[in-house]
Amino acid sequence: MSLSRAFATTLLAAACSAYAADPADLMITDGTVLTMNPENTVFEHGTVVVSDGKIVAVGGPELTAKYQAKKVLDVKGDIVMPGLINTHTHGSMTVFRSLGDDVPDRLHRYIFPLENKLVSRDMVRTGANLANIEMIKGGVTTYADMYYFEDEVAKTVDKAGLRAVLGETIINFPVADAQTPEEGIAYAVRFIHKYKDHPRITPAFAPHAPYTNTTENLQKIAALSEELNVPVMIHLAETDREKEEIAKRTGGKSPVQYMADIGVLNNRLLAAHVIMADDNDLDLLKKYDVGVAHNISANTKSAKGVAPVTQMLEKGIRTGLGTDGPMSSNTLTTMNELNLVGKIHKLETKNRAAMPPLTVVEMATKGSARALHMDDKIGSLETGKLADIIVVDTKAPNMVPVYSPYAALVYGANGANVRHTIVDGVILMEDRQLLTVNENEIIQDAQRLAEKVRETVRASGEEVK
Amino acid sequence: MSLSRAFATTLLAAACSAYAADPADLMITDGTVLTMNPENTVFEHGTVVVSDGKIVAVGGPELTAKYQAKKVLDVKGDIVMPGLINTHTHGSMTVFRSLGDDVPDRLHRYIFPLENKLVSRDMVRTGANLANIEMIKGGVTTYADMYYFEDEVAKTVDKAGLRAVLGETIINFPVADAQTPEEGIAYAVRFIHKYKDHPRITPAFAPHAPYTNTTENLQKIAALSEELNVPVMIHLAETDREKEEIAKRTGGKSPVQYMADIGVLNNRLLAAHVIMADDNDLDLLKKYDVGVAHNISANTKSAKGVAPVTQMLEKGIRTGLGTDGPMSSNTLTTMNELNLVGKIHKLETKNRAAMPPLTVVEMATKGSARALHMDDKIGSLETGKLADIIVVDTKAPNMVPVYSPYAALVYGANGANVRHTIVDGVILMEDRQLLTVNENEIIQDAQRLAEKVRETVRASGEEVK
Repeated sequence: MSLSRAFATTLLAAACSAYAADPADLMITDGTVLTMNPENTVFEHGTVVVSDGKIVAVGGPELTAKYQAKKVLDVKGDIVMPGLINTHTHGSMTVFRSLGDDVPDRLHRYIFPLENKLVSRDMVRTGANLANIEMIKGGVTTYADMYYFEDEVAKTVDKAGLRAVLGETIINFPVADAQTPEEGIAYAVRFIHKYKDHPRITPAFAPHAPYTNTTENLQKIAALSEELNVPVMIHLAETDREKEEIAKRTGGKSPVQYMADIGVLNNRLLAAHVIMADDNDLDLLKKYDVGVAHNISANTKSAKGVAPVTQMLEKGIRTGLGTDGPMSSNTLTTMNELNLVGKIHKLETKNRAAMPPLTVVEMATKGSARALHMDDKIGSLETGKLADIIVVDTKAPNMVPVYSPYAALVYGANGANVRHTIVDGVILMEDRQLLTVNENEIIQDAQRLAEKVRETVRASGEEVK
Repeated sequence: MSLSRAFATTLLAAACSAYAADPADLMITDGTVLTMNPENTVFEHGTVVVSDGKIVAVGGPELTAKYQAKKVLDVKGDIVMPGLINTHTHGSMTVFRSLGDDVPDRLHRYIFPLENKLVSRDMVRTGANLANIEMIKGGVTTYADMYYFEDEVAKTVDKAGLRAVLGETIINFPVADAQTPEEGIAYAVRFIHKYKDHPRITPAFAPHAPYTNTTENLQKIAALSEELNVPVMIHLAETDREKEEIAKRTGGKSPVQYMADIGVLNNRLLAAHVIMADDNDLDLLKKYDVGVAHNISANTKSAKGVAPVTQMLEKGIRTGLGTDGPMSSNTLTTMNELNLVGKIHKLETKNRAAMPPLTVVEMATKGSARALHMDDKIGSLETGKLADIIVVDTKAPNMVPVYSPYAALVYGANGANVRHTIVDGVILMEDRQLLTVNENEIIQDAQRLAEKVRETVRASGEEVK
């Protein structure tokens, strides 16, 4: 049998091309690649190449010939974009989700007493596992968490392969893992030392709020965060009660002004909510380079009002998107929030051109990376950045057709349209199948714990609803 | 081989039970059944039995022994509820979705000229097919549509197995299927005669809006709708332009007052939007038993403001939920809208207890049936009603755990959580697989048409975005 000359030439060319091509771990081909780089470059039929957990090339179809990847995902026109970043949640509270929604003064009358009875290592782990799978399935690759027993959350994040900023809560009353705020600080310091060098986990302090912490402790935490070079996360300018209590403490100052005056606003701080902020407050947040987590769902569901995000963006404040905890939102998937962000800010400003789809997608990706002060590492698809990537189905009936990928994402998509989720170059979900954790097992654990929650609520004389 | 006495007894009992059981076409077992009956009865481990397209029994697990069904869906705790009803859309516009979002005065500057170039039988069919699969996959079992060539839409609805109220548009300028509104009326009458006896399709008149129709034609349509006993659908109290033009026409009347005064408000009318309505307008809608389609997404995305739905509900106005067309919302899945309805009305009323989850689910089911004046047939799971039923996954990570099924649906669910969709007792989707139409073929047709749309937009000198 003799090979034809043409066929032999083709074979040789293919062999040489494979030989000349650079090796890579993963290559995503034929995507509508939204880089979210400074120019928001989009590549049609684009390629993203990953090696050693980092993006090594982003470009058009011509790149496919230059690399020989161990794994290729041919996504046939689907949207390829940076993983979504959820800048504020309390993931373990998934096990309480949909419980006592719409109870007035819910935080103090319902949630705090419930947590008092139920928060434990087991609950935190079970809830965090559930949160992780919801986020992976919804395209979240990095999240910022504030809760108790954050070392348990860290174990689940490590196993699941996600990236996270995990803040141990410090609060002025006895909680499950600390009898005093000083014990809370000590717990946080131990946790921080343990996880400081983890490649995907950034341990942090999470003083609950200004009004639930003393000035002295807020300052102590700020000093420790500088010493240990870790972030601080806090609820700020969120509630009427906070505003009143801080005004009482300070003779009338706003929570943001108070935080500035006690010297705890800085570029390691992430402030969640920031609903009740005037122009001066916003200028302070900008001046001190504070990050802000905008939680549209919690703002609206609680009827507290909507954070002045259009002004924050105008001032160049580091503004990202968060879901808040699953008792407040009740989703952990920022993909489901894009729609709300777009629509509610148009309504609030009475301007249909306000908060266009591109701005919303920016907020959920590189904006959130900026809010976490991690924009040097994540938030866009650029050479050298960490390979946190998602692929969104553009052939689902709710997505077809795609004239503007940003509009399709904001007004059309939901979390279930995410097909693949990749963190640090590792595929955590491929074609909706979770690869690092056992989904059924996690769901069953959560359902078992939910039974215990039901019993506890009933025993306290409340209705389960 | 001799049978043991115990075994023989068991066999006999089983045989007798099967013999004694009533035959049924379909039985759904072990559901969390939200009947949405007048008392909103919920059955845990509940059963719904269907025969000849109707619900023959709804109850607890004891019902399973009483029926022998050809097909059993054991849903293992999933939510079983009436199919969602989308009271207002323009389904065929799916092929334009995400095009020119956020263009100011978009209807007159962008959408009408685009439709002028592109609306055809082919476009209407292609778009309607896409709309149908999006709605089936999102749990919509009945929808109300206003567009052109509604006889083409009717063919797709007939084939897909959905239920629909289809209104042929009548408008004061030349459109694809009528050069004059009189031709539009004649088209509608022919369409109505053709589909009047279809078991799932209710043909209707759809005058576009008061300001785009003459008083004479609105009255003529009202008379014809009485004569033919069919509904009328209209956009009402939606835009500033409408308000101004009607005020000019009438010396200052509101659109609703005008409609009342010319004698066209009645119990066959469905009014979409009703944003700009004062207390007097709402009283008129109640007095004349008009149905209202609340389109939260379109209200917010267009920054027009939110319809006064809490007042509508207080007054007992027939109020249902609609998505509006896919250029306005951009979804056709009312499941995705529940979240917006709950959250935005809390925000608007500054009251976290406003618009609780049960009220939102009522609006999307029996409220929408009332708005369409079809509450004798659909909108709840009750014996004798048509078997339009959906099953919603409660084991997806975004749904676990379920303490309140209503809260889980409103704050947690998205369209992709719908597992099964049943209309008239026929399963249109089973475990996310469409059974009556070819999903891939429909998607590909829509993508082909989208190419033509792109060319047309570019040829007109506009950008495709």
